Amino acid sequence: MIKNIEQQFLHYVKKMMSYNEAIQLMYWDMRTGAPKKGIEQRSEVIGVLSHEVFKMSTSEEMAAYIAKLSPRDVQEQLSEVARYTLAECKKEYERNKKIPADEYKEYVVLQSKAESVWEEAKAASDFAMFRPYLEKLVEFNKKFVEYWGYNGNPYNTLLDLYEPGITVDVLDEVFAKLRERIVPLVKAVVASPHKPETSFLFHPFPKEKQRAFSLKLLRELGYDFAAGRLDETVHPFAIGLNPNDVRITTRYDERDFRTALFGTIHECGHALYEQHISKELIGTPLCTGTSMGIHESQSLFYENFIGRHYSYWKRNYPLLQQYAPEQFANVPLDEFYRAINEAKPSLIRIEADELTYPLHIMIRYEIEKGLFNGTIEVKDLPDIWNDKYEEYLGIRPDNDAVGVLQDVHWSGGSFGYFPSYALGYMYAAQLKNAMIKDLPHFDELLERGELLPIREWLTANVHRFGKTKKPLDILQEATGEGLNADYLIQYLEEKYKAIYRL
Amino acid sequence: MIKNIEQQFLHYVKKMMSYNEAIQLMYWDMRTGAPKKGIEQRSEVIGVLSHEVFKMSTSEEMAAYIAKLSPRDVQEQLSEVARYTLAECKKEYERNKKIPADEYKEYVVLQSKAESVWEEAKAASDFAMFRPYLEKLVEFNKKFVEYWGYNGNPYNTLLDLYEPGITVDVLDEVFAKLRERIVPLVKAVVASPHKPETSFLFHPFPKEKQRAFSLKLLRELGYDFAAGRLDETVHPFAIGLNPNDVRITTRYDERDFRTALFGTIHECGHALYEQHISKELIGTPLCTGTSMGIHESQSLFYENFIGRHYSYWKRNYPLLQQYAPEQFANVPLDEFYRAINEAKPSLIRIEADELTYPLHIMIRYEIEKGLFNGTIEVKDLPDIWNDKYEEYLGIRPDNDAVGVLQDVHWSGGSFGYFPSYALGYMYAAQLKNAMIKDLPHFDELLERGELLPIREWLTANVHRFGKTKKPLDILQEATGEGLNADYLIQYLEEKYKAIYRL
Repeated sequence: MIKNIEQQFLHYVKKMMSYNEAIQLMYWDMRTGAPKKGIEQRSEVIGVLSHEVFKMSTSEEMAAYIAKLSPRDVQEQLSEVARYTLAECKKEYERNKKIPADEYKEYVVLQSKAESVWEEAKAASDFAMFRPYLEKLVEFNKKFVEYWGYNGNPYNTLLDLYEPGITVDVLDEVFAKLRERIVPLVKAVVASPHKPETSFLFHPFPKEKQRAFSLKLLRELGYDFAAGRLDETVHPFAIGLNPNDVRITTRYDERDFRTALFGTIHECGHALYEQHISKELIGTPLCTGTSMGIHESQSLFYENFIGRHYSYWKRNYPLLQQYAPEQFANVPLDEFYRAINEAKPSLIRIEADELTYPLHIMIRYEIEKGLFNGTIEVKDLPDIWNDKYEEYLGIRPDNDAVGVLQDVHWSGGSFGYFPSYALGYMYAAQLKNAMIKDLPHFDELLERGELLPIREWLTANVHRFGKTKKPLDILQEATGEGLNADYLIQYLEEKYKAIYRL
Repeated sequence: MIKNIEQQFLHYVKKMMSYNEAIQLMYWDMRTGAPKKGIEQRSEVIGVLSHEVFKMSTSEEMAAYIAKLSPRDVQEQLSEVARYTLAECKKEYERNKKIPADEYKEYVVLQSKAESVWEEAKAASDFAMFRPYLEKLVEFNKKFVEYWGYNGNPYNTLLDLYEPGITVDVLDEVFAKLRERIVPLVKAVVASPHKPETSFLFHPFPKEKQRAFSLKLLRELGYDFAAGRLDETVHPFAIGLNPNDVRITTRYDERDFRTALFGTIHECGHALYEQHISKELIGTPLCTGTSMGIHESQSLFYENFIGRHYSYWKRNYPLLQQYAPEQFANVPLDEFYRAINEAKPSLIRIEADELTYPLHIMIRYEIEKGLFNGTIEVKDLPDIWNDKYEEYLGIRPDNDAVGVLQDVHWSGGSFGYFPSYALGYMYAAQLKNAMIKDLPHFDELLERGELLPIREWLTANVHRFGKTKKPLDILQEATGEGLNADYLIQYLEEKYKAIYRL
């Protein structure tokens, strides 16, 4: 009897997941080459299917499954997959049901308006234009937090949307450490007379050659092309339709090969995660990364801990020299290594280097926390933003386009998302530290291009679980401890002190 | 009240069409580059969505809409789009409801088994292997015809699936004419000592150059790349996701540029049809070609009446010579024109030239008719097939792989489909004849590359209606008469008598 309901429930969920897979493919297609004129109709189709998934997730049928399967004695009879799936569906159900339908509809309209206003406002560098929309978005989210409830701090509820288990208390502690150690390090780097020479990075590097080189690196990193493909988009991304179809995209800048190179390695990290989620989870909401932060830990691990590592280039620099001989023939490996690890304060988050990046996130965290704790008002954001950039990075935006208006997130109502980027970074450093206990010859592996043991370690400790484990449980089991900023700080200090001879 | 139900009905149908659009995109993706390992899961997703569409098309809700909106006095109050949509949905509903669910399920299983057995049988050139499956497929279809009912001849019901309005009586008459006039013409061509020189066709022609040339021709033909794209597949096709997104694919053979060239022009003809269906029909089942035959008339019009026309090459041959100078520098236009219009009996339908092609179809028509009229049995097919090839084309297959097993259609249970190919051909010749009354300088238009008036004529007379007009109504209104094989015969006689100096 219960087994029967379990089957029906899983079948019902599988249908929702099938719709999601179709939606994801349409999304991928829109971004990689769907004909322009078809976009409007395709968006409608996506709307129809999304609405259907939403309806299913909040239906009476779903409510009945939740009611029947939730009692503890029933849950004990369920398979592990069914139990975790139930938990996900329940969470989703409650989240969606607690917001009055009319209010949510109004919010969806606001979101899409706000995004287009934000685009205009950014183009005009005019925060005043965006301000009323941002104010409403914040108000709505405050109300949602009230509906959903919160523990300790209202902002915790928003953090929980992206990184279950992470709270303001946790973040305050780690960001305090980062502030204390990274801000002075950045200042020292700025003051150092030993800056890397970087002019050779900007020679013309034809797209086709860049693509060929990227494909070679992807293969060596272990990306499975029988379960993926590489395309070109303005904003690169990785998308897991299912573990057997995980696609990545990149962007080629012929005057700066680093865009495609590090972008591709970054997306490869995301893709390896999705490609190695246990196949049993296909057709359930568990078949994806467990959180934004853990996902980002994988992409940053590949981008920084492998892709910007000296040993990795000891192996791959000669290959790069073959693809662009004129550009690199007279540049020694050491100079190349220092150049691709240049660090300097900059205004734009997505262009920031690995040393300054956490500070960009810290600024956003402090602002979001303030907005939801009533200590910051939207109207004051431009000044607060600029002051914080000056304080932490020593530079001040001279307009809002390169300041408070630079990111898309808030215009879509995403508050609580930014911290994931920094968390991913800290997780990655912690995982690296745990990994080298099992793989003490990590550097030699990179040097020999033997990347399989590294990927396998990540699969065993992170990838395979999908959403069956919470982010902090993955961290705890893989590293033996909770969130700890020390490993990232240590990594950055060691690396940048060496590069800048501090 | 009625307007209300009409709205709900159209909304319901739009949802089905949204699912269909998603399914079509997944189909396109599977054929153009989806990662191999993901195919299985993607097929499941397609299965889930297709099942949903099927359920909706036969639901009680659909039955209620049909019951409420069908009465004549109600229909009169409906918009034209709603009325035609209702008719389509009703047809589909009745077709699906009349077959007992168990039987249909059994049939679907048989279909998929039969297709894979056919593949094996074809590879082994062993009809005996495929025979029991084909027998069952024919039996099922005979039963379906009984369920659906028929007028005059049981085979009419199958013809109606692909070409509403076309019957055995009509086809017998036109095929008799084709037999009488084309069979002797083919014999005369075979006997002619004035054969075109064709060896220069088979020089290596790099894929990239072929693609660039194809893109140029497509633009000139009027294919809108803002509402489409060109990709590469083993089996080329055109697919209309909606009029603003109509994609084509082609295949490049570096030793025979004709494959991509004429294949692309052919698919372009299909695509121009789909791109120019009235946008009001989006979201209804009317937003597609009205029949297989009319669709084929558009592709064949472009492929043969434009793409194999002397005037077209008078304009485009110099361009082709630029793309492959070594291959064509010393080949005069006249020789090139004769070569691309070479006609000779061959065994394989999809490789046949325009002169012999109708005979390949006639053979299949005669066999299908015999199967469903009880005058031919499956067990005798190989002999019957081979005898007919000998009789009409003067050549005899020496194995079943190049004989009765060559086409995929029957293995999928498609009977009644083949005649559409010949009908499309006859329609195209009739349309051409009507068109030149409005565009008497047709040849000059080709010579000047002014293809817009031609496309506009086809849009005004064929494309825009989508499925709101039946094939024979389109023909009648565009040409002033019903199906008439004379125009095709006249075209072929004039053209091939000139080329082969008969």
